[in-house]
Amino acid sequence: MSGYFVIPSELKVKSPIPGSEFRVAWGEKIMLSFVRMPPGGVVPPHNHPHEQGGICLEGSMEFTIGGETRTLHQDEGWMIPGGVTHSVRALENGAYAMDIFYPHREEYK
Amino acid sequence: MSGYFVIPSELKVKSPIPGSEFRVAWGEKIMLSFVRMPPGGVVPPHNHPHEQGGICLEGSMEFTIGGETRTLHQDEGWMIPGGVTHSVRALENGAYAMDIFYPHREEYK
Repeated sequence: MSGYFVIPSELKVKSPIPGSEFRVAWGEKIMLSFVRMPPGGVVPPHNHPHEQGGICLEGSMEFTIGGETRTLHQDEGWMIPGGVTHSVRALENGAYAMDIFYPHREEYK
Repeated sequence: MSGYFVIPSELKVKSPIPGSEFRVAWGEKIMLSFVRMPPGGVVPPHNHPHEQGGICLEGSMEFTIGGETRTLHQDEGWMIPGGVTHSVRALENGAYAMDIFYPHREEYK
C-alpha cells in the first residue's frame, strides 16, 4: 500500500481460503484485512497468536469464538485474544468484513 | 466490555468532542472506537503517538492526514502512523466510522 488512505478496491486480491477474497493493508503495527465471503462460505476453526478485532461490513455471519456462537450483522464486531479458536460461516447473502490483526499476519502479505 | 463480541449499541457513549458520540471496546493490545459525527462535525487537527487505522461505515467524510486531503465513503479507510497530524470533517449526511488504535487510547476508557 502507499499513502495514508486504504481503498479496498485498489488492493491486491488473495484467496488463502478458496472462494473467499482477501485484501490486506498494513501500517507499522496493525494490519487491516478485508474479507468477502460467498453465501455459506466458511473459515474453518483455527487459532493464531495474533490478537484479532473486526467488524461485519455487509451481510451476516455466524461467528464462533472460544465455543461461543453468535450471528453478527452489519456494524457488529469481535475481539479475539491470541490463541483462542474461532470460525466463521457466511449466511445466505454472504458477508463482507474487516479484520484487524496485531501483529501483522505475515502470510497474508 | 465482556466476552468476544463487540456490539456498539451495548457500549457506553462518551463525547470527548462535543456533538460526536464515541463508543470504545478493547482487547489486550488494540482498541476499537466507533464514532458518530453529525453533518459538518469536525475532529480538529491533532496527533498522538498511537498508530490509527480505520474505516468509514456510513456517510462520508473529508479526511486530512499529513497534509493530504481525501473524501472517503463507506468501506474506505485509513492508516495513520503515530505522530502524523490528522483531522476530519463529516459531510452533509454525517458520518459513522470505526477507528483502531494501537496501543490503547487510555483517555477513551
